[in-house]
Amino acid sequence: MENGLIVLGLDPGTRVTGYGIVREISGQAELVATGTIRTPVKRDMATRMGFIFDKVRELILRHSPAEAAIENVFVSKNPSSALKLGQARGACMAACATSNLPMGEYEPAKVKKNLVGVGNAPKSQVAFMVAHCLGIKKPDWPEDASDALAIAICHLNERRMRKLTGM
Amino acid sequence: MENGLIVLGLDPGTRVTGYGIVREISGQAELVATGTIRTPVKRDMATRMGFIFDKVRELILRHSPAEAAIENVFVSKNPSSALKLGQARGACMAACATSNLPMGEYEPAKVKKNLVGVGNAPKSQVAFMVAHCLGIKKPDWPEDASDALAIAICHLNERRMRKLTGM
Repeated sequence: MENGLIVLGLDPGTRVTGYGIVREISGQAELVATGTIRTPVKRDMATRMGFIFDKVRELILRHSPAEAAIENVFVSKNPSSALKLGQARGACMAACATSNLPMGEYEPAKVKKNLVGVGNAPKSQVAFMVAHCLGIKKPDWPEDASDALAIAICHLNERRMRKLTGM
Repeated sequence: MENGLIVLGLDPGTRVTGYGIVREISGQAELVATGTIRTPVKRDMATRMGFIFDKVRELILRHSPAEAAIENVFVSKNPSSALKLGQARGACMAACATSNLPMGEYEPAKVKKNLVGVGNAPKSQVAFMVAHCLGIKKPDWPEDASDALAIAICHLNERRMRKLTGM
């Protein structure tokens, strides 16, 4: 099995975009970096989308991930929130695609099932499993960062599974 | 009044993004370029958002607009369509913001009122006024391109108005 594959997980939002970068070492996920991109909320939306794009590109340049993963979310019932979320997703997607990173998309239930075993697991349990998978005893990252790490770990697991099953 | 200001108008969509580039000459709008960006529909969404980003950046490099304008739309009642539209908007916004273009956002009713005089004007009337403003007798561009030109012309008009009224 290949070693050292680095994956960038993203949890986009117009205010806060979480990121989590993990490396696969001998089938285990290892933390590379995690955190949040906070957009300048007083600026106009286009400026904020440019900000997200630039920061994601910086992360890619610094950590050289080979692949990216994003939640294929849809929770909002409000078209206006959906439009905003879509904008942040579009900026993230453009940053990854223009860096030639293939991007996996996963439903929220898929991410939960992958990490915890059930699709309706509570957020706290997903956060616990994220820290456990990475071998971190006392995680000190915010929720958006944890969500992004969950997506990155899910992507690594799914990828490994596809290789093992030859699918 | 300054001469030669170039504005890039964008009408984003995940399948088709219309663009219209106009130049202001002595208070009149002049056509520079217009057309559509058609994303590779068989590719994944991230690739398509990267495609839109790259094409908008190409337009900016080729025509050197100083400002951009986009419709601050919300027509869809469907959160899923809103999310998709948002993604295309995010890619367009990121391309303009990372090229340091300030971006104006206009409600659809504002664009119609600006060009035709009434906020609920039919699309055909807007298209007619777009061609008229640009002095083009037989416009041969598709609807998405015409919509993008309308936004660019609206931006020029609003900008001129703000200068005249000192607002």
